[in-house]
Amino acid sequence: MSKEKKKVDNKRTVDPAALEVLERNDGQIETAYDRYVQMQPQCNFGRTGICCRICLQGPCRITRKASKGICGAHGYTIVARNLIRAINGGCGAHADHGRHLIYTVSEMLAGNAPDYSVEDPEKLRRVAQMIGLSVEGKEERDLLQEVLDAAVSDFTKLTDEPLRWLEGTITEGRMKKFADCNIHPRSVQTAISETMGQTHMGVDSDPVNLVFQGLKTSLADFAAEHIATDLSDILFGTPKPVTSEANFGVIDPEMVNVALHGHNPLLSEMIVRAAREMTAEAEAVGAKGIKCMGICCTGNEVLMRQGVPMLTNFLSQELPIMTGAIDAMVVDVQCIMPGIRAVAECFHTRIITTMSHSKIAGAHHVEFTEDRAAEKAREIIHLAIEAYKERLPDRIDVPKLKNKVTAGFSVEAMLDVFAAVNPDNPIKVLTDAIDSGQLNGVVLLCGCNNLRVLHDHSCVTVIKGLAANNVLMVATGCMAGTAAKLNLMNAEAVEEHAGEGLKEFYRMLNEANADRLTDKLPLVFHMGSCVDNSRAYDLNTLMANQWGIDTPKVPYAASAPEAMSEKAVAIGSWCVTLGMPTHVGVTPEITGSALVDGVARQIAHDVYGGYFIWEEDPDKSVEVIMDALNERTWKLRVHRQAQEKYETEKISAGW
Amino acid sequence: MSKEKKKVDNKRTVDPAALEVLERNDGQIETAYDRYVQMQPQCNFGRTGICCRICLQGPCRITRKASKGICGAHGYTIVARNLIRAINGGCGAHADHGRHLIYTVSEMLAGNAPDYSVEDPEKLRRVAQMIGLSVEGKEERDLLQEVLDAAVSDFTKLTDEPLRWLEGTITEGRMKKFADCNIHPRSVQTAISETMGQTHMGVDSDPVNLVFQGLKTSLADFAAEHIATDLSDILFGTPKPVTSEANFGVIDPEMVNVALHGHNPLLSEMIVRAAREMTAEAEAVGAKGIKCMGICCTGNEVLMRQGVPMLTNFLSQELPIMTGAIDAMVVDVQCIMPGIRAVAECFHTRIITTMSHSKIAGAHHVEFTEDRAAEKAREIIHLAIEAYKERLPDRIDVPKLKNKVTAGFSVEAMLDVFAAVNPDNPIKVLTDAIDSGQLNGVVLLCGCNNLRVLHDHSCVTVIKGLAANNVLMVATGCMAGTAAKLNLMNAEAVEEHAGEGLKEFYRMLNEANADRLTDKLPLVFHMGSCVDNSRAYDLNTLMANQWGIDTPKVPYAASAPEAMSEKAVAIGSWCVTLGMPTHVGVTPEITGSALVDGVARQIAHDVYGGYFIWEEDPDKSVEVIMDALNERTWKLRVHRQAQEKYETEKISAGW
Repeated sequence: MSKEKKKVDNKRTVDPAALEVLERNDGQIETAYDRYVQMQPQCNFGRTGICCRICLQGPCRITRKASKGICGAHGYTIVARNLIRAINGGCGAHADHGRHLIYTVSEMLAGNAPDYSVEDPEKLRRVAQMIGLSVEGKEERDLLQEVLDAAVSDFTKLTDEPLRWLEGTITEGRMKKFADCNIHPRSVQTAISETMGQTHMGVDSDPVNLVFQGLKTSLADFAAEHIATDLSDILFGTPKPVTSEANFGVIDPEMVNVALHGHNPLLSEMIVRAAREMTAEAEAVGAKGIKCMGICCTGNEVLMRQGVPMLTNFLSQELPIMTGAIDAMVVDVQCIMPGIRAVAECFHTRIITTMSHSKIAGAHHVEFTEDRAAEKAREIIHLAIEAYKERLPDRIDVPKLKNKVTAGFSVEAMLDVFAAVNPDNPIKVLTDAIDSGQLNGVVLLCGCNNLRVLHDHSCVTVIKGLAANNVLMVATGCMAGTAAKLNLMNAEAVEEHAGEGLKEFYRMLNEANADRLTDKLPLVFHMGSCVDNSRAYDLNTLMANQWGIDTPKVPYAASAPEAMSEKAVAIGSWCVTLGMPTHVGVTPEITGSALVDGVARQIAHDVYGGYFIWEEDPDKSVEVIMDALNERTWKLRVHRQAQEKYETEKISAGW
Repeated sequence: MSKEKKKVDNKRTVDPAALEVLERNDGQIETAYDRYVQMQPQCNFGRTGICCRICLQGPCRITRKASKGICGAHGYTIVARNLIRAINGGCGAHADHGRHLIYTVSEMLAGNAPDYSVEDPEKLRRVAQMIGLSVEGKEERDLLQEVLDAAVSDFTKLTDEPLRWLEGTITEGRMKKFADCNIHPRSVQTAISETMGQTHMGVDSDPVNLVFQGLKTSLADFAAEHIATDLSDILFGTPKPVTSEANFGVIDPEMVNVALHGHNPLLSEMIVRAAREMTAEAEAVGAKGIKCMGICCTGNEVLMRQGVPMLTNFLSQELPIMTGAIDAMVVDVQCIMPGIRAVAECFHTRIITTMSHSKIAGAHHVEFTEDRAAEKAREIIHLAIEAYKERLPDRIDVPKLKNKVTAGFSVEAMLDVFAAVNPDNPIKVLTDAIDSGQLNGVVLLCGCNNLRVLHDHSCVTVIKGLAANNVLMVATGCMAGTAAKLNLMNAEAVEEHAGEGLKEFYRMLNEANADRLTDKLPLVFHMGSCVDNSRAYDLNTLMANQWGIDTPKVPYAASAPEAMSEKAVAIGSWCVTLGMPTHVGVTPEITGSALVDGVARQIAHDVYGGYFIWEEDPDKSVEVIMDALNERTWKLRVHRQAQEKYETEKISAGW
């Protein structure tokens, strides 16, 4: 505790560019870094999950004196209810994202969204096939309607048949496991609705039953995410390798700088297009042009598909405004600190909210609608250009730091890279490298930033540690952001940080792809935004199917070193349910119940094969993740040896 | 605060039977009354709504030192988010209830629920007509399918057209208002899903926008409740006047006593039937027979339709077990204190959970399924009979208190009563009585019990005060329970408590109904369970349409003197949105933001005509409710006089 107290200052980041801004500001303009300090000490009842506010008799807090809530709820019930409501919040956010894409496709098919079209007909066919539709001889429009109908059904139905987006994406073993444990969601929204009801005062008090409902909801979250990603790829294209830059140095003081912040590509894609078309208007006010740059997952979306530079990730979202050179920060949904508005008030920057259900009191609001998407995008760029005219030149001070980034690694792009080595069976390139001991497994780096741990530090430490241990890394969300802005998402980082096995693996891939890729492969493969975590899991499924095993045997772990949002709780929960060891670097609000904590860390493993690991120390995090991978690679090898020795046909498909 | 502290003891009830059990027990067996004392003092951050636990950086608590959350969220954002998540919890609970009825009807139509049938074909036709279906020449089965399809659509759809269960039940003025304010829910489950997403970290921070989404969700709640009630009536019959008894004296030590607790009639109706058929088995173990009795809203459901006696309401649910004469307490969903199991461990009583999503660790679980409903009901009764054999005779001590209850007043039953006076236009009997000044309006008493106020005391005080002020009262949920068990739900109470005008009104009704009803009318009309609050609102709509005005002009208020659950928050919110002055006797977690508090109490009035009144003092509560009614009756009379004087055609339909 005292150790923790010492560390609390208002410069809790290892990002040199962010530090530069913070040091120059020296607390004059309040940011999240300051508010975190002001908020200390934080309530330990809430922190450990044993504060219940579900009815108006509360709050009830579990203490020695009061060992149960007023209704008689034990600590384990309270912790479990709070936990699965958090999963529900995450699922609700992803459902919102997916639903928005569903609306847009629906409006597009009805002729009411003229600025959208199918950019990737091949992806449409792949998605249709994946969910079991026949594609033979079908018109694109009809196929899109069928995919849409299936998505609507997975989102809304009340009946028991499996979700198309689970059946089509996960292993048979997982499907059977979920049927056995009765955690197949009826649909995305039914799961959300059920969880709200089941956690109501006086409904379920059985912690295991509650947690299982939470896991059901996490599978709904997975489906919602997958649908969102698939529809985004169909509308805007499946990401392909692309090279760009990241960190505050991407701000060009001579351009109109537009920061795109939030999570949804529906508007940001339109803004990027509008910015390219409106250069003349910017030049007319004296700027060299218009530069878009991304924050959080909107940033990831436009980086992956359009090569738009990455400005920064979640925690430092207020700081770009303080360079004095951001003319507009356009936000859609999720992880947008309301604090940006107060910072913007000290500058000329326009904060522009765009969604009817995501407003900030006092910000500019340009309501985005699918029927006038391009027009709205132009309106927003116009506001940025107007703002440019109001800049305060003596307050412009932009850190120079920027790093080269190679991004755009959808699963399709990864398989393309592998196909250069093995065109007949690309994924075998990866599983062979693990079988041979060249690689020690795969890790998905995902999640947010969280001021409870030093900003970016945990992520950087984990990346460097895993690289040295010959682990292949894919990243999403704000952890992809960390890697991008701190020089870990390029080929140079491979040279600097990778162990020998990993370097060899890269050498093989780079050689085979020499004529196919303009840049060498990066140390961390950028798989997209938070909602794209389903991409990372698809890679897991491919590996499991290649080995003929279920995912709980695959040496593939997830790590969220700086988890913060309810979405992270939902994603972590499906990672576990889908069989992954899942490291979380910020212990969630669960430790108030040894029982629920045990379910997350041990019972989950016994039932589903995946499990949670809480480890806040970044160096130790590397160790625990390696332990988890090594256990699985060791088992894989032992099984293989036994198989060869006794000439059995296959590794058992069970786990 | 010191006054509050003095009042905190563990005998916080005015129910003499509950007091008798508590005094005899003297704290030996722990109950909610004891746990409330142990829980003092409670956290004021949570109590006032300014504690945010929505992301893993929290908890953030608004203080002078830290006036915003770490993300920069103001207190108003935090309060608004917490508030609408509470509405969402309530809507989730009612959605669960409605969805269960939808499943049952669906299984019934598929031939998989043989123990259920359409008990009330007339109600089926009325519901079909209400939601705009043509009924001419249709078979019952086909009509039921159409009603079911409409219910499924209202529950699930993603599109914008109005809900059938709103369009068919509320005034045209309300429909227009909700369209103008853009708060028509897309469907019950879409609203729930949206609210989870909108309250996620970094999405909406505009408190008014958040509250409006909460109101949208409350309308979804209204629709879910209405659907649940309508389907229940179709399956089990629309309630008609019935006379029974209430309070602990209904326990008969010589019978096998089965307490039915929870909210859903689907199982309890089956248990009541099974109990009637299994007398011989009970007699075989030495009992005189089997007696069912109700707690909470399951109790209200079986009282209304089957005349099953009412045992007690929410807060005293643990105490019947302590009489030593309850053989089984069968629970389904909602408002079931986990504490009942620990109490039952000191006795022979079986706690039997029945729903897969509502378990209590350590209780007996008999999984209820629609396909074997009657069989499961018999299994439960059999468990109760087995338990009877294990009674501890020297621990049996049953309070004698019981009171006569006349219940069963669905809107249809109310109109039947009025029709005896005016067969052509029954509702005019009520509006005429208000126009003439005989009555001062109507009040819906609804909601729960809450240990923050003396159990049953607020409700009793409000009932007596309103009766003396010539207010017609309808009641649901635990407030109906209070009236029933404390001798206020019978004709004698009219004589004792009603003012002259109200007495005259009753005299007229009783005379006209002398040949039609076996009992005289009660002081408080029992309209059903919490989910039946939609019935009470339907009466409001009928009155509004009779006067040709919108509901914000109708002198009809709601009062939840002892609100506790998230369902109460949802119901209170739609009462306000639907135009009612809504008194709440336990201030909800809102006062941490003057802005959000102001929205609830004033802005809501300006926009929707309804508004919240927080008043914890029961005597003052009577005054503020009367003020709200008197303002409306006065305005009605002034308008009427103006209309007569200037010969205008009608009171303006606006408000």
